[in-house]
Amino acid sequence: MVSRWAPDARERLETAALELFVEHGYEETTVAQIADRAGLNRATYFRHFADKREVLFGGEDVLAGLFGDAIRAAPPDATLTECLQAAFAATEVAMTPQQRAKATRRVLVVATNSELQERGLLKHARIARSINAALRERGVDALTARLGAEVGMLAFTIGVERWMESDHHEPFPLHAEAALRDLQARTVAFEPGSVRTDGSDGF
Amino acid sequence: MVSRWAPDARERLETAALELFVEHGYEETTVAQIADRAGLNRATYFRHFADKREVLFGGEDVLAGLFGDAIRAAPPDATLTECLQAAFAATEVAMTPQQRAKATRRVLVVATNSELQERGLLKHARIARSINAALRERGVDALTARLGAEVGMLAFTIGVERWMESDHHEPFPLHAEAALRDLQARTVAFEPGSVRTDGSDGF
Repeated sequence: MVSRWAPDARERLETAALELFVEHGYEETTVAQIADRAGLNRATYFRHFADKREVLFGGEDVLAGLFGDAIRAAPPDATLTECLQAAFAATEVAMTPQQRAKATRRVLVVATNSELQERGLLKHARIARSINAALRERGVDALTARLGAEVGMLAFTIGVERWMESDHHEPFPLHAEAALRDLQARTVAFEPGSVRTDGSDGF
Repeated sequence: MVSRWAPDARERLETAALELFVEHGYEETTVAQIADRAGLNRATYFRHFADKREVLFGGEDVLAGLFGDAIRAAPPDATLTECLQAAFAATEVAMTPQQRAKATRRVLVVATNSELQERGLLKHARIARSINAALRERGVDALTARLGAEVGMLAFTIGVERWMESDHHEPFPLHAEAALRDLQARTVAFEPGSVRTDGSDGF
């Protein structure tokens, strides 16, 4: 009967892992226990995930692909901002209400363990590299592409925070797009003499 | 005779580790070998560094402190850019010509191992948090502080790359300050309709 479920193995392992990490703690949970909870075996686990940490970060690998593809597919005359907005719009398929419920629990688990934070940062850096590479393919200069990737990822991160905090269940892209607009409004702080950090204007 | 050298233990361990990682590879080197090369023992190693990776990242902890202190000590009417420039100026004490030679070898070692990349990203995130916290203490709003920390770290990273590549041995702060100016010039790309990613202007 197990083979009947095999196409869902990855998702079942992710769900089982998150349940066990919340119930017993990340460090106390073994890969064998995750596989057992999912009705699978250890070997199957390692066909899907390289180590115990990886089971929490499958979504990030999906996002890296969605971001890059959307930026490459944006209209030829799209601005940098329009490219990033296209990337955020493309994530809606992955950032579902069901994922939102999981994301909140996942944040709590990751906060307990610095090795998980490290893995999260590695995944975050890979998404940024995917944005950077896609912008470069469009002919964006190297520095603008790096700045676009960093600011895009900051908008994405802030968007995720707002999406998780919001009670209104707006689609994720709206939060990320609003975060990007809010950051854009603050780039003037980098113009020489424009705004003092004590709040006065610098002219 | 060992006690005579004890004040230098940390630096000796760092030097020994880097030598061994370059000679034999990071994964093939043990903490016992590092301690032995430094003329110390394993227990002394673990008084200075929590694990094998940590010996490569002591500089980042120093930088997090230098950045935060310099931003807090900047004049009350300093702009965001002036705060970041003050932070870069403060790093000169840590970014010495001797460190530059080490940095180049360290980059090569870190590139070979994803666990080292993860640790580097964690340290990078901690420096960004230190910048963010120092800007918040100055009364900078939350989003501007996060943007300042990310753009500041990107300028720092690009500055390190240029510092390592340059043959002219200019002091590190000059490279970081120039990188920040270059990024500032590109923030206009985030203004709606200003620059198309195909290089035409968007008006």
